[in-house]
Amino acid sequence: MLDISNRGLEMPESPIRKLVPYAEAAKEKGRTVYHLNIGQPDIETPKVAIDAIKNIDLSVIEYSHSAGIESYRKGLANYYNNLNLNVSFEDILVTTGGSEALLFAFNSCLNEDDEVIIPEPFYANYNGFAKTAGVNVIPVTSSINTGFSLPPIEDFEKLITSKTKAILICNPGNPTGYLYSKQELETLRDIVKKHNLYLIADEVYREFCYDGETHYSVFNLEGIDNNIIVIDSVSKRYSMCGARIGAFVSKNKKLVETALKYAQARLSPPTLGQIAGEAALQTPQSYFDDVINEYVGRRDLVIKGLNNIEGVKCPTPGGAFYAVAELPVKNAEKFCQWLLEDFEYNNQTVMIAPAAGFYATKGLGEREVRIAYVLNKESLKNAIECLDQALKVYPGKI
Amino acid sequence: MLDISNRGLEMPESPIRKLVPYAEAAKEKGRTVYHLNIGQPDIETPKVAIDAIKNIDLSVIEYSHSAGIESYRKGLANYYNNLNLNVSFEDILVTTGGSEALLFAFNSCLNEDDEVIIPEPFYANYNGFAKTAGVNVIPVTSSINTGFSLPPIEDFEKLITSKTKAILICNPGNPTGYLYSKQELETLRDIVKKHNLYLIADEVYREFCYDGETHYSVFNLEGIDNNIIVIDSVSKRYSMCGARIGAFVSKNKKLVETALKYAQARLSPPTLGQIAGEAALQTPQSYFDDVINEYVGRRDLVIKGLNNIEGVKCPTPGGAFYAVAELPVKNAEKFCQWLLEDFEYNNQTVMIAPAAGFYATKGLGEREVRIAYVLNKESLKNAIECLDQALKVYPGKI
Repeated sequence: MLDISNRGLEMPESPIRKLVPYAEAAKEKGRTVYHLNIGQPDIETPKVAIDAIKNIDLSVIEYSHSAGIESYRKGLANYYNNLNLNVSFEDILVTTGGSEALLFAFNSCLNEDDEVIIPEPFYANYNGFAKTAGVNVIPVTSSINTGFSLPPIEDFEKLITSKTKAILICNPGNPTGYLYSKQELETLRDIVKKHNLYLIADEVYREFCYDGETHYSVFNLEGIDNNIIVIDSVSKRYSMCGARIGAFVSKNKKLVETALKYAQARLSPPTLGQIAGEAALQTPQSYFDDVINEYVGRRDLVIKGLNNIEGVKCPTPGGAFYAVAELPVKNAEKFCQWLLEDFEYNNQTVMIAPAAGFYATKGLGEREVRIAYVLNKESLKNAIECLDQALKVYPGKI
Repeated sequence: MLDISNRGLEMPESPIRKLVPYAEAAKEKGRTVYHLNIGQPDIETPKVAIDAIKNIDLSVIEYSHSAGIESYRKGLANYYNNLNLNVSFEDILVTTGGSEALLFAFNSCLNEDDEVIIPEPFYANYNGFAKTAGVNVIPVTSSINTGFSLPPIEDFEKLITSKTKAILICNPGNPTGYLYSKQELETLRDIVKKHNLYLIADEVYREFCYDGETHYSVFNLEGIDNNIIVIDSVSKRYSMCGARIGAFVSKNKKLVETALKYAQARLSPPTLGQIAGEAALQTPQSYFDDVINEYVGRRDLVIKGLNNIEGVKCPTPGGAFYAVAELPVKNAEKFCQWLLEDFEYNNQTVMIAPAAGFYATKGLGEREVRIAYVLNKESLKNAIECLDQALKVYPGKI
C-alpha cells in the first residue's frame, strides 16, 4: 500500500504553523504584522563572517572532513577554552546546525523507545527530533509561578525508569529565557550521576545572559565528563541562522566516535557556513556588548510592557531572547489567531506563538504565549501597544 | 547504564574508513597517493556560483523557508522543465544534500522495520541512512558479467513481502556507473505499479551520461506520479559537494507535505549553499560539454587501461564517474591495504575502494573495487600504471 509512514503522519507540526496563513492574510490586507513568533533575530551578522564569505578563494566548493574543517574545530576548542571549558578539538563534531547535533545525540545515546526527560515548556522541535529518532519525550513540568526554574529533584526521580537514558535541558532556555543557576545544574549532575544518564545541554544561547549573571555550562560540572553532550550553534551567537552550523561536543570518546559515523554517512557539514563560522570566531567583544545591551533594553521594554497590561503575567527571563507570558484569555491559540484575523490597531497587529505547543503535557500552557524579542525597540513598543489594545477588546478575555 | 545505543554501535562505517590511516602513513613516507577512492571531483565549480557567493549582499545570514528559497525552487522547477520533466516548484523541497533528501524519503515512506529493495552494489551510505531510519535494506544482486544491468524482474518479485514499501535506484549508478535504459525503468515502473511501492530514484549524476545516451528519468515514467521520489543534489552536477544542497522532489502532495514536517523541524537548508545553487542554474552549456568531454576521456583511459591489465575485468560505465572492476586477487580489501602499506612504484601508489562494502549480501564483491575517475588524465594514467605494476608483484594474486 502506498501509504505515508505512521511516523511521518505523527511528526509534530510547528506551534505556529496553523497561524502562518492568517499572518499572510493580514499582510495581504496591508497590515503591519510584528513577528515576535520566531527566533530569527534582526541583529546583523558580524562583518568578519560576511567578509570571509565575500573573500572566499576557492575554485571548487569541496566536502569538508565529516567532523568539520580541522582549523575551525581547533578555533572552536579555543573559543571554549576561553570560556574556561576544557574542550579539545577532537571532542567536537561540526554539525548542520544544532538540529543535527541533537539528532546525532538522540541516535547515539538512545535506542528506539528509550526515554529522554525534558523540563517543559521546551523548544517544540525537540518533539520532531525525538519522533525522527523514535524516542519518547518524558516532560517534567516547570511553572510560570517560579519563573520556570528547574523542577524539584523528586519530580525527576519519579519519572526515571529503566528506559530513561538522558535528560535534555536548554540553558538559557527557549521558550522561557530561564537561566539555570549553578545549584540547579549541580542538582542535575547528581541525578545524572546517580542514575548514570546522559545530560544533553543545548547551550546555543550561552552568550545571552543578562543582569551580570554568567553562564554556567554543564562542562563546568565535575565528575560527569562522560555523561555530557553539549549542543551548540552559531545561529544565535552571531545571528547567522542560515549558515546551518552547529556542534556536537562531548568528552566521551566512544560517543564522539559513534556520532562521527552518523556524520560520515551525510559526508560533510556545509563548507561555506563553516568558513563563515570560523571567521566569526574573530568577532570583537564590542559586538557582543552591543548585542547584549540591545537585548537587555528590548527585554526590559517587553517585560515591563507586558506586566503593565492588566491580567498579564510575565517573569523576567535571565537570558536568550524569549519570554513566556500568561494572558488573561481562555485559549491563547485562539487569541493568537484572532490577533491576525480580526484585530488591528493603527493597521498593525502582532504574531506570537501559543505556548501549549511547547508543553508535552496536554492541557498545559493554554493561557500562555511565547514572545521572541527579535525586533527593534520601536517595533516592540508598537507590538506591546497592540497587545494591550487587543486585550481590551478581545471577546475571549477572562 | 551509560551505553552507546545499539543502533549507534550498528551504524555501518564507510568502506574506505579502515584504509584512511594507511593512506596517511603512505603520504607521511613522502609517497604520492592517487585518490580514486572518493566522489570528490577535481572539476572546478562554475564561476557563476562562486561569484554569487563573493557578491552576496546580506547583513544577516537568515534562515530560509524550510522548503528552500522560493526563487531557487522556481529556478529548479525551470531546470527540470527544460529536461522535459514536468515539475512544479511546490513539488520540490530543498534539502541539505541528497543525503537529507534520502532520509526524508525513508522517514516519510517507510515505518521502522519496513523494507526497501536496492540493486547491489549500491552507494554504501544508503546503509547508514537505512540504519538511521530503522528500515531494512533488501539487496537484489546485479552482476559485473552483465555490466551491472537491472536484475531480472523475477529477482525483484521474489523479494517483495508485506514489509516492502519502496525500491531505491541510483541512475546513473554509484558505484557502477551503469545507466538504466528506458526499458529497464519501465520494468521497474511495472513492479512498482503492481505492488504499489514507492520508487525512490537517486538521479544526482543525471548530467553525466556518455556515448550519446540521454538520461531517462523516473519522472518520464507514466502512471506512477504518486509513487515517485527523486533525490537530487548540486554536489556532482556543479562540482560543489561542500554546498550541501540537494532536493526531495515528488508529485505526491501528501508525501511532500509529510517530508516538509521533517524539513520544518530542522528549520532551513543552508542559505549560502542555496545562493550558490541558484546562481549555478545559470551555468552555461559549454561548462557541461567540457566536463562531460573530460569525464569521457578519463573513463576511456581508465577502462581501457584496466582491461589491458591481465586478469582485470571492467565493464564500460555509461554514466557518472565510477567504475567497478574485478581484480585477479583473492581479497580486494587486502589488496587495497597492501597498495597503501607495502607498495610503491616511482614513489607513487593508489587508493581505491574495496567493493564488498557496496554489497549488502555477504561474500559478494570480494574481488571487486570501485574506482572514481575524479583526477586529471595524467594522474589517472599514473594510477593505472601503478595498479598494473602492483598486480605484477602482489603476493595475493590469483
